[in-house]
Amino acid sequence: MRADGREAQELRHVHIETNYLKHPEGSVLISVGDTKVICAASIEDRVPHFMRNTGKGWITAEYSMLPRATEQRNIRESSKGKVTGRTMEIQRLIGRSLRAAVDLESVGERTIWIDCDVIQADGGTRTASITGSFIAMALALAKLHEKKKMKKFPVTNFLAATSVGIVPESGIVLDLNYAEDSKAFVDMNIVMTGAGQFVELQGTGEEATFSISELQQLLDMAQNGLNQLFEIQKKALGDIAIKIMDNAEAKE
Amino acid sequence: MRADGREAQELRHVHIETNYLKHPEGSVLISVGDTKVICAASIEDRVPHFMRNTGKGWITAEYSMLPRATEQRNIRESSKGKVTGRTMEIQRLIGRSLRAAVDLESVGERTIWIDCDVIQADGGTRTASITGSFIAMALALAKLHEKKKMKKFPVTNFLAATSVGIVPESGIVLDLNYAEDSKAFVDMNIVMTGAGQFVELQGTGEEATFSISELQQLLDMAQNGLNQLFEIQKKALGDIAIKIMDNAEAKE
Amino acid sequence: MRADGREAQELRHVHIETNYLKHPEGSVLISVGDTKVICAASIEDRVPHFMRNTGKGWITAEYSMLPRATEQRNIRESSKGKVTGRTMEIQRLIGRSLRAAVDLESVGERTIWIDCDVIQADGGTRTASITGSFIAMALALAKLHEKKKMKKFPVTNFLAATSVGIVPESGIVLDLNYAEDSKAFVDMNIVMTGAGQFVELQGTGEEATFSISELQQLLDMAQNGLNQLFEIQKKALGDIAIKIMDNAEAKE
Amino acid sequence: MRADGREAQELRHVHIETNYLKHPEGSVLISVGDTKVICAASIEDRVPHFMRNTGKGWITAEYSMLPRATEQRNIRESSKGKVTGRTMEIQRLIGRSLRAAVDLESVGERTIWIDCDVIQADGGTRTASITGSFIAMALALAKLHEKKKMKKFPVTNFLAATSVGIVPESGIVLDLNYAEDSKAFVDMNIVMTGAGQFVELQGTGEEATFSISELQQLLDMAQNGLNQLFEIQKKALGDIAIKIMDNAEAKE
Amino acid sequence: MRADGREAQELRHVHIETNYLKHPEGSVLISVGDTKVICAASIEDRVPHFMRNTGKGWITAEYSMLPRATEQRNIRESSKGKVTGRTMEIQRLIGRSLRAAVDLESVGERTIWIDCDVIQADGGTRTASITGSFIAMALALAKLHEKKKMKKFPVTNFLAATSVGIVPESGIVLDLNYAEDSKAFVDMNIVMTGAGQFVELQGTGEEATFSISELQQLLDMAQNGLNQLFEIQKKALGDIAIKIMDNAEAKE
Amino acid sequence: MRADGREAQELRHVHIETNYLKHPEGSVLISVGDTKVICAASIEDRVPHFMRNTGKGWITAEYSMLPRATEQRNIRESSKGKVTGRTMEIQRLIGRSLRAAVDLESVGERTIWIDCDVIQADGGTRTASITGSFIAMALALAKLHEKKKMKKFPVTNFLAATSVGIVPESGIVLDLNYAEDSKAFVDMNIVMTGAGQFVELQGTGEEATFSISELQQLLDMAQNGLNQLFEIQKKALGDIAIKIMDNAEAKE
Repeated sequence: MRADGREAQELRHVHIETNYLKHPEGSVLISVGDTKVICAASIEDRVPHFMRNTGKGWITAEYSMLPRATEQRNIRESSKGKVTGRTMEIQRLIGRSLRAAVDLESVGERTIWIDCDVIQADGGTRTASITGSFIAMALALAKLHEKKKMKKFPVTNFLAATSVGIVPESGIVLDLNYAEDSKAFVDMNIVMTGAGQFVELQGTGEEATFSISELQQLLDMAQNGLNQLFEIQKKALGDIAIKIMDNAEAKE
Repeated sequence: MRADGREAQELRHVHIETNYLKHPEGSVLISVGDTKVICAASIEDRVPHFMRNTGKGWITAEYSMLPRATEQRNIRESSKGKVTGRTMEIQRLIGRSLRAAVDLESVGERTIWIDCDVIQADGGTRTASITGSFIAMALALAKLHEKKKMKKFPVTNFLAATSVGIVPESGIVLDLNYAEDSKAFVDMNIVMTGAGQFVELQGTGEEATFSISELQQLLDMAQNGLNQLFEIQKKALGDIAIKIMDNAEAKE
Repeated sequence: MRADGREAQELRHVHIETNYLKHPEGSVLISVGDTKVICAASIEDRVPHFMRNTGKGWITAEYSMLPRATEQRNIRESSKGKVTGRTMEIQRLIGRSLRAAVDLESVGERTIWIDCDVIQADGGTRTASITGSFIAMALALAKLHEKKKMKKFPVTNFLAATSVGIVPESGIVLDLNYAEDSKAFVDMNIVMTGAGQFVELQGTGEEATFSISELQQLLDMAQNGLNQLFEIQKKALGDIAIKIMDNAEAKE
Repeated sequence: MRADGREAQELRHVHIETNYLKHPEGSVLISVGDTKVICAASIEDRVPHFMRNTGKGWITAEYSMLPRATEQRNIRESSKGKVTGRTMEIQRLIGRSLRAAVDLESVGERTIWIDCDVIQADGGTRTASITGSFIAMALALAKLHEKKKMKKFPVTNFLAATSVGIVPESGIVLDLNYAEDSKAFVDMNIVMTGAGQFVELQGTGEEATFSISELQQLLDMAQNGLNQLFEIQKKALGDIAIKIMDNAEAKE
Repeated sequence: MRADGREAQELRHVHIETNYLKHPEGSVLISVGDTKVICAASIEDRVPHFMRNTGKGWITAEYSMLPRATEQRNIRESSKGKVTGRTMEIQRLIGRSLRAAVDLESVGERTIWIDCDVIQADGGTRTASITGSFIAMALALAKLHEKKKMKKFPVTNFLAATSVGIVPESGIVLDLNYAEDSKAFVDMNIVMTGAGQFVELQGTGEEATFSISELQQLLDMAQNGLNQLFEIQKKALGDIAIKIMDNAEAKE
Repeated sequence: MRADGREAQELRHVHIETNYLKHPEGSVLISVGDTKVICAASIEDRVPHFMRNTGKGWITAEYSMLPRATEQRNIRESSKGKVTGRTMEIQRLIGRSLRAAVDLESVGERTIWIDCDVIQADGGTRTASITGSFIAMALALAKLHEKKKMKKFPVTNFLAATSVGIVPESGIVLDLNYAEDSKAFVDMNIVMTGAGQFVELQGTGEEATFSISELQQLLDMAQNGLNQLFEIQKKALGDIAIKIMDNAEAKE
């Protein structure tokens, strides 16, 4: 049993409020335990310089935490005048992950901006951001598709992320909260498609290491957690989920 | 009648959710119509350089908008690497206003950090930030006072803000929404104490001007709106409101 | 009587040297007591992005102090690599104010850059900047008008600024110097047109408040001071003043 | 066979020149095929703020490319005034990896600065940086140990990094060069200790995905490559390698 | 004859207004033809980090141009957020030059801040800055010496700067104005002490070159101009000049 | 005799490795004693804004030191987020110098980017950068000329740089190393063409001065050193040197 009463292989309670904001094309408020992230998807009718004249779209993400999302107040990155390495790493991860679940040619020369703003943090903000942003993005693209701006609905499969790790006393556990994460020997984030394919795998043994057999157990536990997250995404997306499942089947 | 159906002298619906966040000493989610701001108050046990050894506390504010708080996505200030003039002006206004409602000597050498993060914007974000931050600050200071960290509860009176303006077709109106604000001839923000004293008065006739008699009408209408906001603050603060009223009476 | 021997309702000595610099289209050195500001107006034949294809011009201002304009040396903003909030607030105020005295359609798609460089500071640098910049701008626009680059001389009325405040021992006073400003309970800047209309009204009770009747007295005193400043502007502008008065009358 | 004539499981030629620079405590020039990185280790007798009074040391890395390390000239990060997300990600990875091979308590309150400067790039600059920096760091720590500044030689095991990936036409390959990397479906960097334990595992399917069985093959191939790199490190370090092997054995 | 009617070896008219500003310890407005620079000297009772505990003082300079000091408006360096290479070069030159005319041990652990603000530019702003700053600095140090804060008056000799160059049609000329400077083949700045010793010599043949015999003629002409500038400095400094001459003689 | 055993008029050992890097159009590794600089020349088919439509090319240089090029580790300029004044000064000097040895009209509307990266520093990094960059640039331009992209080979003469100085105990010496440079009374950098014409002359007496007769001796000694450097450049450039000599003769 873990400090918060969960079993090793148990996810925290996940709650998703779709269309949380009035202005964005797609938005959700995702809660994973006490971690809460507002994910917004915006669509811009042009692509960055390096994608021009390719006929393909682009997905880019920005991530930020409110200063008091955390136990101790953090200095605002706009006040510091620069974005930390951690933020950049997360932003790149979110963008890269989402691009693996979208047919960018069907999107056409458009940029999908993903904004993940963590309003409360208790571990797993990057994985919650990916899981939530996928829904915000699907909502935005569905709106565009309904308006006949795209021939094909471009989301090719579900995509979600979770963490697994090795934690003192608890051993191998799923979906670490902040207390677990801050003392973990090994911390791994896994991004996967609804087809059970890896998109990203980032395992870190900060001042520690892990063996191939531990890796195998970590991946199994992650797979179980991700299957539950795909179900939650399906429920949140309603009819749009059907379109995604159709696309996923067609691809196989 | 105004475009959204309100009377000229009518406030938008105001809703306040206290203790909205888990970590900060005080926090609220304030909604004024479709404008939504998370206000958090953090207490740090030291003061900025220019206040050291004065025995007095300090209150400072930071203000930011989520990129998709608005109709069009705004570039994140942390990405730009600098804070705009508009943001700085608002931050200074919020800090200055709150300092007028607090006995800084009773606070002692502490800094109260106010974070106002606009998650949805529809006009009046700076006045909603002041009205909401006052409550978040009072909650944080009450917690400190209960822990006997201060001899005296230092909030001296209620403090709220609203806007008035002169709008084409509607004339003089209270609490402008974004559509009204963007076409207003005259725009005025008023910060007032529960005793009806002015703290800040900022009237701007962007490419327009206003007469002394128009000023008089604007101020009257603002006073009415502010009285309603003080009532809402009282309700939200419960027992803490009684302490504030006691302080306000003692001061007279 | 005030510390510097002035009556409560007395302006400091104002001196204006027109065409102070060789290169700018318009320039003045304005002295208000010991406060000295070089104001330069430059005309650029294009407008910022948000004004393109509107057929209208734009006025923008920059404000800076020499490091030893003040008693203690200030760090140069170019060395710090960023502009302070105070500077941004003043720059925005100057630009906004001047735009209220100019018919931007007559200006056409041009930008008027106003540079206010404080070479000596003794309180009231922002109001001296506005009063002086108005003259520099009128000189520059008159030059353009003489060259037949504009059909109509676009300055619609005089525009000046002053401060009033409530100061310990002295009470309500006009045109605060630095010593008065730094201890004032209430500080108010008023920008007005030659027609007696308000353009900007910014009253601040830093850690203090003021009543409606005090506001009335402050505004009356400001009006008197501003009338004297309009006379000084008229004298400094000579024939150009006549054009402005013609425009002002035509507007009524 | 691959475009450069290598077999799928073949490393590029690795050459290490120890003590390449005169001034640093430890340095190497590592070449992995056409990729060349200067790695320097500097020792500072204090730790960053967050490590003070812990009795432990810290290892931090900086990574940079010369502008013409690449086919097309890159803008210098010092000219841009900021470090890119990619650079930050690599810096954090190098630092984190090296910390897993060092007993930071034995280091004491010192910082080991690792500088990786890529003078020529042909893919795999981050893995070459880790493999080379490990040697530079061991050289620097050995020097300190010889001077009796530390009781125990603190390097606990060998540590090296390589890449594996899935490349069109070639399939699963080891140690990708730039041409392979830029078209790879899947790209994975593995950092491992001499004991065969994972330190970091970062697999990315940019706009692609990979299965669990592909992951297994990738990891096997990486393990083989890493074993060769450990041998190269042993040879380069001479007597110091013996100290490391002793520490590694003692730990088991 | 030159375009402005001067002989080849003729300086422009030099005018110096001492104590031009109210607040600084020393200040001048120096005009060299149409070039006008405000030079201010401030004294701070501490030295930069690298001079601590040396018992010696330091002199550092900052240089800036008003945006409309020039024919075309320049972007303000504070708006750009960084100082140009040209500005840095000039700042370093001014500081280095002045340090050669002061006995830094007599100054004690103090910093002399020199601020050179060009309000109008017509060539030779850096040499005018040095010539003027020398006077501002001497005024500030004399004030300190009178207050018995230093045992010895620390200015060891006069110090001035001028330019010489080779200009199409005019040949070798003294004290180039902007028109001459912008088309010169060779441009040389010379900083010299009252004893005729070189402090700085910077000759540049931008896209051109010069011979040793041309160098000889340039230096002779500069020497003549500098002798006149020393006389102007003497006159401006009055009694302080006598102290400097005493120091200069004692040194020989 | 000097501390490192050299005679006063003796250069350090100079070694040049041409085509040191794989990617740039031209590159060298130049060693002058223990000072080692990688110089790379890149050719871009466009010119900066201020050179457009002039039909002429441009040469611009960037200079940087690896953090451990020096005895003490320097903070990386990319981490500081800005380039120091010293770096800017050197960059400007290198670019200006090289432009004097090239017929920019023959280059056509192209930019030659020069990157000088100091990998080890022992004094004279800026002069080694100029001497080495000249070769890298000539290599790059020769490649372009061979490809018939230019009618005329545009390098008009050899160009090299060295330093001379007055050093305690040693007196007037050539090619100062770091130990000499850091205690020199006078330090002078001379850039000269193969025809014995000055391009740049920068003499500095930091807290010291020098006479005209000392200047004469410094220049003579520099001339001797530069003649040796021209011979080294000729040898390194092989056939390209013949083209340069032809151009130089044609110019006379």
